[in-house]
Amino acid sequence: MRFYSRKWIRPADLNSHGSLFGGQLLQWIDEEAAIFAMCQLNNNPNIVTKYISEINFTASARTGDIVEMGMEVVAFGRTSITLSCEVRNKVTKEKIITIDRIVFVSLDANGRPSPHGCTEERD
Amino acid sequence: MRFYSRKWIRPADLNSHGSLFGGQLLQWIDEEAAIFAMCQLNNNPNIVTKYISEINFTASARTGDIVEMGMEVVAFGRTSITLSCEVRNKVTKEKIITIDRIVFVSLDANGRPSPHGCTEERD
Amino acid sequence: MRFYSRKWIRPADLNSHGSLFGGQLLQWIDEEAAIFAMCQLNNNPNIVTKYISEINFTASARTGDIVEMGMEVVAFGRTSITLSCEVRNKVTKEKIITIDRIVFVSLDANGRPSPHGCTEERD
Amino acid sequence: MRFYSRKWIRPADLNSHGSLFGGQLLQWIDEEAAIFAMCQLNNNPNIVTKYISEINFTASARTGDIVEMGMEVVAFGRTSITLSCEVRNKVTKEKIITIDRIVFVSLDANGRPSPHGCTEERD
Amino acid sequence: MRFYSRKWIRPADLNSHGSLFGGQLLQWIDEEAAIFAMCQLNNNPNIVTKYISEINFTASARTGDIVEMGMEVVAFGRTSITLSCEVRNKVTKEKIITIDRIVFVSLDANGRPSPHGCTEERD
Amino acid sequence: MRFYSRKWIRPADLNSHGSLFGGQLLQWIDEEAAIFAMCQLNNNPNIVTKYISEINFTASARTGDIVEMGMEVVAFGRTSITLSCEVRNKVTKEKIITIDRIVFVSLDANGRPSPHGCTEERD
Repeated sequence: MRFYSRKWIRPADLNSHGSLFGGQLLQWIDEEAAIFAMCQLNNNPNIVTKYISEINFTASARTGDIVEMGMEVVAFGRTSITLSCEVRNKVTKEKIITIDRIVFVSLDANGRPSPHGCTEERD
Repeated sequence: MRFYSRKWIRPADLNSHGSLFGGQLLQWIDEEAAIFAMCQLNNNPNIVTKYISEINFTASARTGDIVEMGMEVVAFGRTSITLSCEVRNKVTKEKIITIDRIVFVSLDANGRPSPHGCTEERD
Repeated sequence: MRFYSRKWIRPADLNSHGSLFGGQLLQWIDEEAAIFAMCQLNNNPNIVTKYISEINFTASARTGDIVEMGMEVVAFGRTSITLSCEVRNKVTKEKIITIDRIVFVSLDANGRPSPHGCTEERD
Repeated sequence: MRFYSRKWIRPADLNSHGSLFGGQLLQWIDEEAAIFAMCQLNNNPNIVTKYISEINFTASARTGDIVEMGMEVVAFGRTSITLSCEVRNKVTKEKIITIDRIVFVSLDANGRPSPHGCTEERD
Repeated sequence: MRFYSRKWIRPADLNSHGSLFGGQLLQWIDEEAAIFAMCQLNNNPNIVTKYISEINFTASARTGDIVEMGMEVVAFGRTSITLSCEVRNKVTKEKIITIDRIVFVSLDANGRPSPHGCTEERD
Repeated sequence: MRFYSRKWIRPADLNSHGSLFGGQLLQWIDEEAAIFAMCQLNNNPNIVTKYISEINFTASARTGDIVEMGMEVVAFGRTSITLSCEVRNKVTKEKIITIDRIVFVSLDANGRPSPHGCTEERD
């Protein structure tokens, strides 16, 4: 699993309990997964989120924490790519969220699924 | 299923393809689900997202569309509440996203699961 | 009056006193009123805010509060629609803001007022 | 009337018609009016918006436009201050919005109206 | 130096130490400098940031503070304009940031540097 | 130089010319540099931006582009750390911005410079 993007939690990211707002975390994950998928698919920008498997929230995070998002390719389909994701606290390595499968589909100019021609994970 | 909050999609909500950014949609859902759960649990503000079951993206939406978010109680646990969710296009009624189960847990002042004492859906 | 959209106040919504930032509240109202007006006008997306009558701020709200926004049709004009609005604390039902009239105008493709053909409030 | 803060309209500020989102404009006005009021009241940070008189939207604005917000003291009360406001296109000087009266109230540490002791407009 | 736009610091603008987030401050400066440059160049909207000289952070700011941003023309080039900038606390006049030179370049329709024809600072 | 965080440019990140808003880019850099510095300083969260050397904008970016931000330690001081930064287009590797030195200072609980005890770059 490769950990690229990191976030530094600020007051604007909190819910009213003073812990990380779950919706903000989901937004960060969706963006990072899309970036990772595009990079794997030869920088193809024309992809959309199709499916996210169940999400477990195993810990929270607080202002001042740094979280890092890890992604890994689970499978290459003909027109799709499947990733797994883990978000953890950068300092304690405690897992905050795990997602087994996030599926993106590659589209052609008319918005229809289109073969992406990729079969191997790259850096 | 009750449809309360609605969103009017603006350019700030789009991804680079010109359709609704998935991360924005997930943020809206998490916020609306939390509000719905709190209202069901006697206005208890001390709840956290614990689990979200698989998410299917069945359609997209574009700038100018109005989306509405529907929620319904699936089950009351002792310290938890489980909702189901559907987001649809307000005009065409086309489904954009469906989620079978979103689980929130009620916490006490020390952040530990705490019985909420509710057993029936209310308006 | 129908209460649809609700908001859960987070730290990002506060002013420097720790109460709900008035500008944020006005933004929520304008968006919700526009959505309500469009839905009343046969899902016509081509409307603009023309006039807002005086606004009384009768109470504030704090982080963790849920506010709900109520709208109601006051009058259908030939090219316009007039709503009234009330924002209240979802729990205490305390009124936060009341506005007697918000007027939207329906426009044609050239940006000129255009008859909308609607005369009755719908769900 | 003094014109201080200016805004450069970007895509993130637009509604789905491609013109300035009214809610964004109201948020800018509320913030600028609060700043102007605090500066007039001897830099008193403890003020809240109490009342806004009717708002006329006389023109729109588009991406790339610069809008400027003018404020002026209408009256000093014992615990309040009343401003008038005009937002206009910086280039064409076309009026976008006019508001005759925005009332702020000065509060003490317990949130009750408190005399501010100011009687004259300052730079 | 002319001080136009002011900002009222809210919780959403803070870093995790509770002081003004530096990245937010840089965003405000870049926007205000662009507006000032456009106004100096005969309201030419077609300019881009080319260079910012070294930035010294000499003080911080907290929630509730009002900061004001001052700009002044240092030099008019043939296709460029150079500004200097100072951000200070509106109340204490303490300097928060100083920047000696921010350079904008005027572009033609093809994105190439283009003479702007201006040589004198205007109000 | 290590490239961690990446951003996918959306309409909300654009200026009115349709290219990446410079202020947004500066905000991303400041956040990423702070995260990188904290991680280098033994996860010390108590640091502030002190100085940024001159910034050259060598290229722009458009909606749909992915940008990546590279950071590297230039020097460890007794209470400070100096980084260099490069932002580039992930696909074309074209440089968008380069900054030779960004200096952060480690603070104690009273906000005074405090030795951080670190002398070597870590992963």
